[in-house]
Amino acid sequence: MSAELEDIHEECGLFGVWGHPDAARLTYFGLHALQHRGQEGAGIVTNDHGRLIGHRGLGLLTQVFSDEQEFSRLSGEHAVGHVRYATAGSKSVDNIQPFLFRFHDGDVALCHNGNLTNCVSLRTELEDEGAIFRSDSDTEVLMHLIRRSSQSDFMGQLKESLNIVHGGFAYLLMTEHALIGALDPNGFRPLSLGRMTNGAYVLASETCALDTVGAQLVRNIGPGEIIIVDDSGYRIEQYTDKTQLAICSMEFIYFARPDSNIYGINVHSARKRMGKRLAQEHPVDADMVIGVPNSSLSAASGYAEESGLPNEMGLIKNQYVARTFIQPTQELREQGVRMKLSAVRGVVEGKKVAIIDDSIVRGTTSKRIVRLLREAGAAEVHMLISSPPLKYPCFYGIDISTTKELIAAKKSVDEMRDYIGADSLGFLSLDGLVDSIGMHEDAPYGGLCVAYFNGDYPTALDDYERDFLRSLTPDDRTRLTEYARETSRYADNEYRVQPAYGPTA
Amino acid sequence: MSAELEDIHEECGLFGVWGHPDAARLTYFGLHALQHRGQEGAGIVTNDHGRLIGHRGLGLLTQVFSDEQEFSRLSGEHAVGHVRYATAGSKSVDNIQPFLFRFHDGDVALCHNGNLTNCVSLRTELEDEGAIFRSDSDTEVLMHLIRRSSQSDFMGQLKESLNIVHGGFAYLLMTEHALIGALDPNGFRPLSLGRMTNGAYVLASETCALDTVGAQLVRNIGPGEIIIVDDSGYRIEQYTDKTQLAICSMEFIYFARPDSNIYGINVHSARKRMGKRLAQEHPVDADMVIGVPNSSLSAASGYAEESGLPNEMGLIKNQYVARTFIQPTQELREQGVRMKLSAVRGVVEGKKVAIIDDSIVRGTTSKRIVRLLREAGAAEVHMLISSPPLKYPCFYGIDISTTKELIAAKKSVDEMRDYIGADSLGFLSLDGLVDSIGMHEDAPYGGLCVAYFNGDYPTALDDYERDFLRSLTPDDRTRLTEYARETSRYADNEYRVQPAYGPTA
Amino acid sequence: MSAELEDIHEECGLFGVWGHPDAARLTYFGLHALQHRGQEGAGIVTNDHGRLIGHRGLGLLTQVFSDEQEFSRLSGEHAVGHVRYATAGSKSVDNIQPFLFRFHDGDVALCHNGNLTNCVSLRTELEDEGAIFRSDSDTEVLMHLIRRSSQSDFMGQLKESLNIVHGGFAYLLMTEHALIGALDPNGFRPLSLGRMTNGAYVLASETCALDTVGAQLVRNIGPGEIIIVDDSGYRIEQYTDKTQLAICSMEFIYFARPDSNIYGINVHSARKRMGKRLAQEHPVDADMVIGVPNSSLSAASGYAEESGLPNEMGLIKNQYVARTFIQPTQELREQGVRMKLSAVRGVVEGKKVAIIDDSIVRGTTSKRIVRLLREAGAAEVHMLISSPPLKYPCFYGIDISTTKELIAAKKSVDEMRDYIGADSLGFLSLDGLVDSIGMHEDAPYGGLCVAYFNGDYPTALDDYERDFLRSLTPDDRTRLTEYARETSRYADNEYRVQPAYGPTA
Amino acid sequence: MSAELEDIHEECGLFGVWGHPDAARLTYFGLHALQHRGQEGAGIVTNDHGRLIGHRGLGLLTQVFSDEQEFSRLSGEHAVGHVRYATAGSKSVDNIQPFLFRFHDGDVALCHNGNLTNCVSLRTELEDEGAIFRSDSDTEVLMHLIRRSSQSDFMGQLKESLNIVHGGFAYLLMTEHALIGALDPNGFRPLSLGRMTNGAYVLASETCALDTVGAQLVRNIGPGEIIIVDDSGYRIEQYTDKTQLAICSMEFIYFARPDSNIYGINVHSARKRMGKRLAQEHPVDADMVIGVPNSSLSAASGYAEESGLPNEMGLIKNQYVARTFIQPTQELREQGVRMKLSAVRGVVEGKKVAIIDDSIVRGTTSKRIVRLLREAGAAEVHMLISSPPLKYPCFYGIDISTTKELIAAKKSVDEMRDYIGADSLGFLSLDGLVDSIGMHEDAPYGGLCVAYFNGDYPTALDDYERDFLRSLTPDDRTRLTEYARETSRYADNEYRVQPAYGPTA
Repeated sequence: MSAELEDIHEECGLFGVWGHPDAARLTYFGLHALQHRGQEGAGIVTNDHGRLIGHRGLGLLTQVFSDEQEFSRLSGEHAVGHVRYATAGSKSVDNIQPFLFRFHDGDVALCHNGNLTNCVSLRTELEDEGAIFRSDSDTEVLMHLIRRSSQSDFMGQLKESLNIVHGGFAYLLMTEHALIGALDPNGFRPLSLGRMTNGAYVLASETCALDTVGAQLVRNIGPGEIIIVDDSGYRIEQYTDKTQLAICSMEFIYFARPDSNIYGINVHSARKRMGKRLAQEHPVDADMVIGVPNSSLSAASGYAEESGLPNEMGLIKNQYVARTFIQPTQELREQGVRMKLSAVRGVVEGKKVAIIDDSIVRGTTSKRIVRLLREAGAAEVHMLISSPPLKYPCFYGIDISTTKELIAAKKSVDEMRDYIGADSLGFLSLDGLVDSIGMHEDAPYGGLCVAYFNGDYPTALDDYERDFLRSLTPDDRTRLTEYARETSRYADNEYRVQPAYGPTA
Repeated sequence: MSAELEDIHEECGLFGVWGHPDAARLTYFGLHALQHRGQEGAGIVTNDHGRLIGHRGLGLLTQVFSDEQEFSRLSGEHAVGHVRYATAGSKSVDNIQPFLFRFHDGDVALCHNGNLTNCVSLRTELEDEGAIFRSDSDTEVLMHLIRRSSQSDFMGQLKESLNIVHGGFAYLLMTEHALIGALDPNGFRPLSLGRMTNGAYVLASETCALDTVGAQLVRNIGPGEIIIVDDSGYRIEQYTDKTQLAICSMEFIYFARPDSNIYGINVHSARKRMGKRLAQEHPVDADMVIGVPNSSLSAASGYAEESGLPNEMGLIKNQYVARTFIQPTQELREQGVRMKLSAVRGVVEGKKVAIIDDSIVRGTTSKRIVRLLREAGAAEVHMLISSPPLKYPCFYGIDISTTKELIAAKKSVDEMRDYIGADSLGFLSLDGLVDSIGMHEDAPYGGLCVAYFNGDYPTALDDYERDFLRSLTPDDRTRLTEYARETSRYADNEYRVQPAYGPTA
Repeated sequence: MSAELEDIHEECGLFGVWGHPDAARLTYFGLHALQHRGQEGAGIVTNDHGRLIGHRGLGLLTQVFSDEQEFSRLSGEHAVGHVRYATAGSKSVDNIQPFLFRFHDGDVALCHNGNLTNCVSLRTELEDEGAIFRSDSDTEVLMHLIRRSSQSDFMGQLKESLNIVHGGFAYLLMTEHALIGALDPNGFRPLSLGRMTNGAYVLASETCALDTVGAQLVRNIGPGEIIIVDDSGYRIEQYTDKTQLAICSMEFIYFARPDSNIYGINVHSARKRMGKRLAQEHPVDADMVIGVPNSSLSAASGYAEESGLPNEMGLIKNQYVARTFIQPTQELREQGVRMKLSAVRGVVEGKKVAIIDDSIVRGTTSKRIVRLLREAGAAEVHMLISSPPLKYPCFYGIDISTTKELIAAKKSVDEMRDYIGADSLGFLSLDGLVDSIGMHEDAPYGGLCVAYFNGDYPTALDDYERDFLRSLTPDDRTRLTEYARETSRYADNEYRVQPAYGPTA
Repeated sequence: MSAELEDIHEECGLFGVWGHPDAARLTYFGLHALQHRGQEGAGIVTNDHGRLIGHRGLGLLTQVFSDEQEFSRLSGEHAVGHVRYATAGSKSVDNIQPFLFRFHDGDVALCHNGNLTNCVSLRTELEDEGAIFRSDSDTEVLMHLIRRSSQSDFMGQLKESLNIVHGGFAYLLMTEHALIGALDPNGFRPLSLGRMTNGAYVLASETCALDTVGAQLVRNIGPGEIIIVDDSGYRIEQYTDKTQLAICSMEFIYFARPDSNIYGINVHSARKRMGKRLAQEHPVDADMVIGVPNSSLSAASGYAEESGLPNEMGLIKNQYVARTFIQPTQELREQGVRMKLSAVRGVVEGKKVAIIDDSIVRGTTSKRIVRLLREAGAAEVHMLISSPPLKYPCFYGIDISTTKELIAAKKSVDEMRDYIGADSLGFLSLDGLVDSIGMHEDAPYGGLCVAYFNGDYPTALDDYERDFLRSLTPDDRTRLTEYARETSRYADNEYRVQPAYGPTA
């Protein structure tokens, strides 16, 4: 985890397997490799000859599945699983996935990673037509659309429904007969297919989960694709041809595990390149480089190599930090009680340090880090960020829903530097970021979504549009309209028949 | 944690505070910084105007203290706390410390980090005189000696008792009137005194705990010293003058947190120097350096800087690995299911890698790491260890009680290299280790205990001596006798009136 | 609990309150008095100024609500609660009530006591129209009907829906604006309105819950009635005029607490009259009367008074019997290990005993009781049952869904006596039962449902009819047709336009 | 449980078995039958070929042993178990028994039912000699005495130790080689030996536990006896000849289960005789008799039979009352919220009721019962108590340690009647009690201890004597001296060389 980005959460990790005698256990280990994508709840549904069996709960995977006997109920050769980040207001087991739907004509399990832009309006509409939701989550909407579809078969119903939901989504479904994955038309979230030596197929949010279970990557699922795995193997179908890759750049910057590959690009290596580029863009006069543990260690190592400065361990993160019920009082905090991060006096005392972090959200953690280092005797503290300033919310599954909480939306770099108390502050440029990742797809920004940095959203914003437009300055609005015209994503996109914003919106 | 050393456990972390209005909470955060020293149990005893109140339990600190209401019972301005590693056979809450003894003439809390060499014989003797023990732990012996002492006051009783127990120990006691720390005559375990801005005194196993609670280091407790903290301040007394510093070198190599300072030496920096020296002693033809996370990252960074090779993240450790109830079956293991460590194919594929680890115990983890890297496509794997081969057991508190489990006790370096399957294998020399740590005290090995590497134990072995002698080869026995004569630790040491081994033993 | 009837379960207890500052706590204590109606799960939903807040879980009320802090979340002045018996296959928290439905136009809580006869067909039909159910329970059907109703207001929708569901039901609903209760057209389950001294209104399944919270009975809710409680007071509406009282006679025999009054009749007193009548119908030559604890103690006391025999405590029930995880092995059972009931040798040895129980279901418990008494030295054992033989299933909420498990459906009284090993066996007559309860309403059997004894069901059986008819002998079928004609319940009943069974069915 | 006596607690139930293949499970069920003797903690220690294995915890037996897997650790053919009532201040698992002591020369398990009169002085003395206690409980004292005894063998050590402890005790010990029971010289607590059909011997606090496990009573253990059960069978030894039976009369009145026999007398029958005698001593003009559930139902039935009045169920006890975390607020209590007991309006309204209870301690519960009945409409309430007024504390194991809490120590019968608000109040006479129980042993009061009623303690009071004497009026002191002379228990009793009180004390 990064320092600042700990407050930002991806919504979820997905794992599914078809055709393995120990499907639940395999799914458990697959989810274990994806635990960094969601720590608030977990669940597994297995398929035992057409009967679906589920278990889910609040907490880490190890807390939800703490009993071998209970676990052994999850029999069957096929399974889907989910780890979830739950937003504060909704810490109810009702929201934990996979959702298991039982119908007189067969059971279906469903789980989801992402966020729909038209969820609120779809849900209202469905409720007005008699639908009853069981949770606060977006995920259910798809199942209601499927069950109300006029198509005659499940695949037809699913495809029709996928064309109705907008935004960012990776879905994993399991029916009596098949394991199914589906990605939104921009492919915001990664989803990969692997194959085990025994022939079982595996679908996972990140390739690190394939590695963990010993599966070989077969291919990445692409924008607008559906993959169906059943006893006869797998096949890929396209539910829409209006697609354009815009994979979330935050996956590279922060979310994904460094050993994962996204579209063939290793995440650690991409981060190291960001660090090198940062060293070129923002050289500093320092005695050492320090990465904020754990997520900025790759970038720090790139910065150190490029700059020739030694890479030191000047900040330590307590590994046992999670889930502490006992909290320091305000008084103890003022006396200097610190739980998560410590600065290493023996390393930094009297030194000029270049501290590398992956991003600044509110700025409070950066401010704390600078203070920690100064209290430990650092002579100078230069803060270097391996991504551009975060200025805009994400509507596709990352929990930054408003610009209000983003310091870069309100302050200039100099103001931010003053706020956090650093001697200097530098951000990687947007071009630097795109080049460092190096996707080179034939799409804007090489196939990345960089909307949090520049506001250029790949889709219409639907239910969010009105509030977003209100939050913009006139200048910004003009600039974004320009962007929308330039990148003109897919011109006949029904999601974006009218530009998301601009004079005519 | 290191890879191989995860199987080796330190027995405990100590924390105490005298004179803070929120003593229990402060102790909680102090122990939190020491959690790496023991994860199987924890406890806190507070002193509320002379009444001692305790709570202890099995598990991590966060599990033992999971309830603010329960926590609030721990009132008072003074406290001692303990985190413990429990050996397999004794996972009973009865063994969790601090032990709270209630007597008609006042309560005493006691906790301990270390191991006594004459515990078994003392315990048998005490039982034969009517003593009843409540646990399997060494710790209680001291309290029985105190209560049976013929001295008239508590300090006299304590000093007399400390002269009867042998081996490695850091004790923390709390009575109605004082917080007391005591160290064995060799000072095997670190213990430091700090002072908070509000004047409260703090005793802790490592300085990182002082930093965590915002305390400034006052001094380290030395061999044979007793420190008494009470309402009038602190004072140091010496219960024996037969002392000689022999601090556990494993604290530098593996146990201590990198941000701790031991006798003024920063642990991270010492490890980095070990890595640099290792690069000088064992240069290899490689494309990159990879440290085994987390404990070998400092050494790897030293090796990389010295060698000029890039330092890469080629191995990833799952941060959520702890306390998994669901285990892979043998079949899944064979299919490649891996939970803890993953090799990063995108980094190592086709590359010659120099992998840095801090030690080899059984060799099984090293073997697994080499295989992981080869499966991920590494062209060559060179294993470099930042300490000498572990050949002898520890009798002072580290859980290596027999040479049988130590691969280096049975195999040559070449045999080990073949066993683990590496292309080459190198260990840091003993001189290299001693120089890198750089203690420079006027004592053998600069004031370090290096017995695990060369068998030169600073004390007589008491109850362990017979079995240890039997396990030696005649050559080894001759060599160790030589050592015993040379280093001749303190000649008139009653613990070692006769050399621990050798012709006359 | 009775001996034999422990295996038969009522499905649930309901409690609601409107207008009390401590609504959740009051509901907790109300449910506590109803705990005998369901021990497998419990829940409470409160209404805090229109926002509904819920908590539910598996286990006894004290297990579900074990934490004051958690409990304090349940703020608000209105509440509904539920205790539930869950059938074996469905021990999932998903089935625990009240169900809390959240809609964009307002939240609704719903709970239920009873069983619908047309649930399966309604559910299938609704699913085919796109409905998604969240549980296995009948209860949800009503909410789907309400949401799909063409009526314009909630009360209209509810009334329409209540006319679609058939069978036995007491519903409790809470919306933003009101607490609502509704009873089926036969009033199978009791539901009573009470008023507290502070003006709050309370609805409960039994009057013992009114007593427990200090509320005075206002009136019983009648067949086909809806009661609406809101800030302006309460009002009663009739959603159908095709009603006829047929309250479950098992409530009097076994389910209800002896201190409850049903339609003004005290349950203990009714049971005592059953015992007196039983003594008249089946006098025996015995030394003493023994009631099977706890539910048959009232009847035993009636039998003793009428017969002039002493009433002794010859059977003891262990009060701590609930929820034992450790079970006797078969071997221990054969060695005589007994957990629940013990016979008192000092009381029964050498004596002729008349043992009073409230019913015989499978006969296994009766057999065990007779053996217990004989082993304890009883000279003769006469078994007397204070209700008629149970021969037919219940389709309105009692868990006897098939005749297969009923010994009286397969054996004559003499055969049963031989099976259980008693010296004699007598049952109360149906007339005796009806007279003893003494309802005297202008309806068949004085307003009771006695279908388990004679097969005369007050409603059509809908989804159950086919299987039930198949299970009948031709004679029984003829007899039941006759009954159906005679009692001709309400002639124009759409549920029973055609008799439930008979030549033309 | 009785109403008033719920606040008074016996300290414990004992169960042991020697020679059964499923010893732990058998002990579990034996303890289950003794659960009424202690609900705050439980434990079992088994003996697997000389190795002792234990498990203990806070809560009901079913909570402590909730896991078959954990339970299966308790292997072996011999076992001892304990259920315990823990006094408020000491709810620590440290006090839960059996205590398991491990020595280098063998393990010993020890448990205890009773209270020592010289515990405090023995403990102080032992501590001054170096002993360390692990708990607050009396029980450990015996083990320290054993370990310090100058005798050469275990039995000699035990006998010597049993002659040093004074007061009321039933001990159960298990060594590698034997199961041992021991009773104090007055036999205050019951202890019985049974034999199973497979030859295993069983020791239990009450015969109901023998019945529960299918064992036949062999004999009761008598005052001053030790019973040793080992592989060769059982033998009885006498560790003192200064014995005189004084079995606790409260066992008959309240503690023991009605199906237990004590010295051959059935407890239910004894209670029924108390009720009959009470009817003779205190006839009242009433319409019905009501027993306070559950413990006074036997006495009520005796009263009803003797008086010819009907025995009604006018008070109902909620069976699910235990361990409620959520408590009514004071406001709810005033509004009439009641959890435990309900009065049955349908039974008592307009009637004159004779309410039978087994004792009055503080008077608060009696007062509440009277109020409940009046609120439910009772025309007159006559309170009749089936034992004499409780005026003196118990020093042998019942938790009435001071006269301060006893209403009868401070008020006359008329004053008590006014306090509780009854129309009349009557107590059984002491003679009536002794006659009704009918022990007829050749000892004062037929072999009963009735000290709580008349202050005539069978032993010297040791550590309690000073405070007790101070609490007496001069008249009482004179009277008690007279008693002490008259009953002159055993004249040469070293515990009572001087009368417990009186002019010369």
